[in-house]
Amino acid sequence: MSDTPTSFSFGMIGLGTMGRNLLLNLADHHFAGAGYDKDAAKIDLLAQEGAGKPVKGFTELPDFINSLSRPRAIMMLVPAGKIVDSVIDELRPLLAPGDVIIDGGNSHFTDTNRRDAALAAEGFHFFGMGISGGEEGARFGPSMMPGGDKQAYEAMRPMFEAIAAQVDGQPCVTYIGPGAAGHFVKMVHNGIEYGLMQLIAETYAVMQRGLGLDNGAIGQVFRQWNEGRLQSFLLDITKDIFGFIAPGTDHLLLDDIKDEARSKGTGKWTSQVAMDLEMAIPTIDTAVAMRDLSKYKALREKLAGLYGPEAAPLEVDKEAFLASLEQAFYFNMVITYAQGMHLLAKASKDFSYNLQLAEIAKIWRGGCIIRSTFLNDIFNAFQQEPELEHLLVDGRVQELVKGSVPGARAVVSAAVTAGLALPGYCSCLSYFDTFRTARLPSNLIQAQRDYFGAHTYELIGKEGVFHTQWTPEHEDAANKKDVQPEENAGKEPVTPNA
Amino acid sequence: MSDTPTSFSFGMIGLGTMGRNLLLNLADHHFAGAGYDKDAAKIDLLAQEGAGKPVKGFTELPDFINSLSRPRAIMMLVPAGKIVDSVIDELRPLLAPGDVIIDGGNSHFTDTNRRDAALAAEGFHFFGMGISGGEEGARFGPSMMPGGDKQAYEAMRPMFEAIAAQVDGQPCVTYIGPGAAGHFVKMVHNGIEYGLMQLIAETYAVMQRGLGLDNGAIGQVFRQWNEGRLQSFLLDITKDIFGFIAPGTDHLLLDDIKDEARSKGTGKWTSQVAMDLEMAIPTIDTAVAMRDLSKYKALREKLAGLYGPEAAPLEVDKEAFLASLEQAFYFNMVITYAQGMHLLAKASKDFSYNLQLAEIAKIWRGGCIIRSTFLNDIFNAFQQEPELEHLLVDGRVQELVKGSVPGARAVVSAAVTAGLALPGYCSCLSYFDTFRTARLPSNLIQAQRDYFGAHTYELIGKEGVFHTQWTPEHEDAANKKDVQPEENAGKEPVTPNA
Repeated sequence: MSDTPTSFSFGMIGLGTMGRNLLLNLADHHFAGAGYDKDAAKIDLLAQEGAGKPVKGFTELPDFINSLSRPRAIMMLVPAGKIVDSVIDELRPLLAPGDVIIDGGNSHFTDTNRRDAALAAEGFHFFGMGISGGEEGARFGPSMMPGGDKQAYEAMRPMFEAIAAQVDGQPCVTYIGPGAAGHFVKMVHNGIEYGLMQLIAETYAVMQRGLGLDNGAIGQVFRQWNEGRLQSFLLDITKDIFGFIAPGTDHLLLDDIKDEARSKGTGKWTSQVAMDLEMAIPTIDTAVAMRDLSKYKALREKLAGLYGPEAAPLEVDKEAFLASLEQAFYFNMVITYAQGMHLLAKASKDFSYNLQLAEIAKIWRGGCIIRSTFLNDIFNAFQQEPELEHLLVDGRVQELVKGSVPGARAVVSAAVTAGLALPGYCSCLSYFDTFRTARLPSNLIQAQRDYFGAHTYELIGKEGVFHTQWTPEHEDAANKKDVQPEENAGKEPVTPNA
Repeated sequence: MSDTPTSFSFGMIGLGTMGRNLLLNLADHHFAGAGYDKDAAKIDLLAQEGAGKPVKGFTELPDFINSLSRPRAIMMLVPAGKIVDSVIDELRPLLAPGDVIIDGGNSHFTDTNRRDAALAAEGFHFFGMGISGGEEGARFGPSMMPGGDKQAYEAMRPMFEAIAAQVDGQPCVTYIGPGAAGHFVKMVHNGIEYGLMQLIAETYAVMQRGLGLDNGAIGQVFRQWNEGRLQSFLLDITKDIFGFIAPGTDHLLLDDIKDEARSKGTGKWTSQVAMDLEMAIPTIDTAVAMRDLSKYKALREKLAGLYGPEAAPLEVDKEAFLASLEQAFYFNMVITYAQGMHLLAKASKDFSYNLQLAEIAKIWRGGCIIRSTFLNDIFNAFQQEPELEHLLVDGRVQELVKGSVPGARAVVSAAVTAGLALPGYCSCLSYFDTFRTARLPSNLIQAQRDYFGAHTYELIGKEGVFHTQWTPEHEDAANKKDVQPEENAGKEPVTPNA
């Protein structure tokens, strides 16, 4: 440690594993980093892990601040919410205009917008940066999604490009867009992650419950899939999980884990924001809902007793069915990414983020939790056609989907008959079948809304909004011609030709 | 009009159809009402419709206020959002402590909480009251969900009970609970409404696309259903819609209506709030998402071209399949109400609303949009067992569900195979099958979360949270023992037996 520098080019607040690992990653690339944490044990860990590297930990904030070369570049990796605000409040009096504050946590993008405005007004550079890859990614190369102050980003870009995951020689980091664009994109990344994890869990259920495979055989299927077009980080770790024996036993640790899924909120945020943007992402919604439902363990056990027996084994040829299952999972994966990309395109318009979807797909190919071979296809699709309306429109994706949808139908149909719950699978297929329907039955919803609430409707091939007195015989019909002003938008609605 | 009183016992702000109709309803029950609207045309309409009744309209707010007997009781029926706040701001200087302000619109319950606190501090009585039934209900008997200031409610209770819809001699109004409980319950009512409407629309698609029935036959099925156990307001108006010829043509007006469904946000709010309460209501989520998806008309047409042909006709015996369809729809209806009631139970706990679910089911039996014969079963279930955990636990509901789930499986399975989109149907069955699964595959989600993010997991039969170093070979394994503090909750997580 004799060569520990006295001035550090980067500061990290919050020395949990993520924060320490990022500092070690920086140090490996010759960027000297200082860390701050109130917990002295964390400082000790950093010293231990960083022996011989240009890193140093501090338990006093002023010492930490003074150790940084100016303009300072400080990243916070602390839990989202009020803690971020209180750290910023502690920092502000110690900083100088021109210093850069980076929020590297999973902050809600609306919080980032608020902080961005407040800090910019005081002369600080702020940017929200989504970081994915977990502990491993932080240590050896994460995917990073910085948004906000572009000038600040450009100044630190060499550092971030050095520590990012690399794919085909390209770093998995790029400037995402203004304001909270970085945190928004990271949120949607996590939404996709929720969807994919739910789908993998359901696939496990199909093999275990539906086909009666043992853990060894299930792990083998995941391993095989991960060697082909389905290759992904999530399948990769899944195959490891199916190889992990509980210490001192002869069975998988997985079998001992409670089936109640927790969450930290980013999936929920994705669904809530999508609803505000009037964007359908039903697979992510379903993944969120199913984590919530999983927590009602006692009620599930009671209902299993009342409505048993549980799912019957599938009456299928196992080998052939496994081929269908691979198709189904592939189809579901495509649909889940497609929903996420569609949401990004909508947010880009509504929030003027000017997102480059090809670049986003590109930096998701390495380092992050949803990295997968399929992201190359997404990258290519948006690279060829930056204004692509929807992933399902792309020619290559069309081929992939057409080749895999028969498997999806076979699996869902069999599971529905047998009583095996596949909510995520169902949502993917429903989304696809709804989206490929030129004429939906939603005209009936509009008629109903107009019937009971005078909410008006629109007509095919005719401008304007219209209201009808639908009731066959009504003593009060004459009174029904006017319409709530917020629905009418200044037009006089009448039943056509009436 | 010679007997128009000079002092009115009730005031209405906002004389759209709903507001005028409520005043006329009050007048029919001998309560003299004053109305206020800036739009003189509305005042004229009120005078016209209310000829000979004790009602009077004003275009000047002070005149209106001064016409009311004290303490004043004033209801606002204006669009939710900022307009409610600006009306309150206009009203405040003109009122006296002890006056009552009722928000009868569809305000978000968090707005109601805020207004409740602010107005109570100034000595006014405030309550948020959900009103359902549309124009027709307002005129001849709505279902009303008042929450907030109980004292204020009790004083006006005779008036509300007089104008409410009556079922078995019981008025469809009851005090719901403190704070914004009334608006919360109305919001969930609307969420259920979204779900049921989506399910009816899908049923229409099954008959039209899947079975090739013409509108006459479809209308006949809805009519028959509405005469049996499926009787409901929404089927009642649906059957009317299937009888309404576009003026000057020989086909249904329904066929001319665009298939892009609009919304005013209450369904979305229900889904968003449910996610905050960690409560799964996937059928309502799906209904919201599918309204959003319906608006992408041009993209749907494009995808129909790329992924055609659209749904194949179902290869089924029509008569037998219609019997399955009735079961399926019945099953879906039960599940949709069950999700709504479960959400109410959760909100009642989390927000200390002390909701009486039997009373809520009771006042929904008449006047409101989701009124149906099945609400009697819901009423009976919660009447017998006020602490019923979930509607599916009730004995009578068990019978109904067990008798109808085979139809649901048959319909969904056939539709999935044929490529006919039934997202709402799928969501009901998935919810049911997930909830009746004692052991879900969610243990895998927990293992994955711990693998990539050290989020820890719980073990069956063992207290505490645990973290494992899952990676088979890892150069940095020694560093992985600590856990993010926000997940760890003070416990030291370790791999069991490790």
